[in-house]
Amino acid sequence: MKRSEVVSLIQYGHTSISNLLFDYYAKLGLNEIEMVILLHIHRFIEDNDPFPTPEEIASRMSISTEECTSRLRSLIQKGYLSMEQNKKDDIVFESYQLDPLYERIVQEVMAPPETTQKEAEGHLY
Amino acid sequence: MKRSEVVSLIQYGHTSISNLLFDYYAKLGLNEIEMVILLHIHRFIEDNDPFPTPEEIASRMSISTEECTSRLRSLIQKGYLSMEQNKKDDIVFESYQLDPLYERIVQEVMAPPETTQKEAEGHLY
Amino acid sequence: MKRSEVVSLIQYGHTSISNLLFDYYAKLGLNEIEMVILLHIHRFIEDNDPFPTPEEIASRMSISTEECTSRLRSLIQKGYLSMEQNKKDDIVFESYQLDPLYERIVQEVMAPPETTQKEAEGHLY
Amino acid sequence: MKRSEVVSLIQYGHTSISNLLFDYYAKLGLNEIEMVILLHIHRFIEDNDPFPTPEEIASRMSISTEECTSRLRSLIQKGYLSMEQNKKDDIVFESYQLDPLYERIVQEVMAPPETTQKEAEGHLY
Repeated sequence: MKRSEVVSLIQYGHTSISNLLFDYYAKLGLNEIEMVILLHIHRFIEDNDPFPTPEEIASRMSISTEECTSRLRSLIQKGYLSMEQNKKDDIVFESYQLDPLYERIVQEVMAPPETTQKEAEGHLY
Repeated sequence: MKRSEVVSLIQYGHTSISNLLFDYYAKLGLNEIEMVILLHIHRFIEDNDPFPTPEEIASRMSISTEECTSRLRSLIQKGYLSMEQNKKDDIVFESYQLDPLYERIVQEVMAPPETTQKEAEGHLY
Repeated sequence: MKRSEVVSLIQYGHTSISNLLFDYYAKLGLNEIEMVILLHIHRFIEDNDPFPTPEEIASRMSISTEECTSRLRSLIQKGYLSMEQNKKDDIVFESYQLDPLYERIVQEVMAPPETTQKEAEGHLY
Repeated sequence: MKRSEVVSLIQYGHTSISNLLFDYYAKLGLNEIEMVILLHIHRFIEDNDPFPTPEEIASRMSISTEECTSRLRSLIQKGYLSMEQNKKDDIVFESYQLDPLYERIVQEVMAPPETTQKEAEGHLY
């Protein structure tokens, strides 16, 4: 392989994913397809494209556009993802926000184990 | 929230994932469950734990240990993951290697679809 | 270059650095040598080697071991870095902590410039 | 601290830096100021701002705009950084490229230590 090709591969880019997400998505009730959709959205946001279409997201995935649309709707309804209307130079545009996801992760991390323990015990009686 | 808790959240750690993986896993025929298994293995390797059990991997996922075992076997059979025997101070231990995955991604990146098509046609005549 | 060499270069590893650090180190009064020492320590911690010697840090830098020792002392005295004694299986070992650095960054981010200004004025009277 | 502030801090963003850069910048003859300039340029490029001014770079650093200008010139002359003219919709714009830096790192990684030794000896006679 030519050195210039190697240099271009080395510089292909990396995305930093919080280990909070890796450690807590399943505990929050997300499955792997939903987790990966959120990872792709994270990357689109970082690439200054904060409102990718279901087609664009699905084109990087193993699922169909229809399934992607339906999963996005479900992620929003279950409160892991939100949409926001922004205005810049009189142009209205929408963007995805991952704040609800991180809100819930922080809530989960901060919940003292005792509470969880008590809740678990509560279910027994 | 206390500032010390915030500081500990900020330092929770991040994992750098190559955008090559995000862009090419589906093209290589991997689905999202397989992709996330590989991400978790990547993280275990970085944490100096290069041979996590199916239980350990599945405990961070939405799938069962049995499904994880079966997926790992399939990833190895299909040539996306390999195992290696290492020896250190007379102790033999095994480790997962992601080299086959990146081998295939490099192969995919280097072969532009048009060229591949034309080359394929060229070989016919 | 052989494909196996390329694959090994691609997998060489990346370190995720918080943009908070890039944006605030100079505002906190750190210079580039101090900033890079903290980056190297961050990486040693991630590699499960939380108390590198000045020699080990300096070997990756353009400065001498003596300068590195003196900079480390200064970073601790100025409150950007701390050392902690840990005990595991009756063995005492030391580790560096970056908590003080992030404490100060959080403080800086949270303090709106106006407030800082007013507080500064307040101290004058 | 409010949870929304914490969530915004957690999402502040991270930059993935190749460990190749951390391990080889000093071996290549770069000092810490030059290394950090290259890190800042890397981040500007990732933020779709591939030709930051010396003012913009220096505003995040502990050095003056004049020193930054002079260091940039030196990095280009010594072959660690290059500028490229691009054309998009009839508009010409410039961008920094880190390819020369990675070219040299790859060269350094690939050079077997013996060769380096022999070359060094060669210079003595």
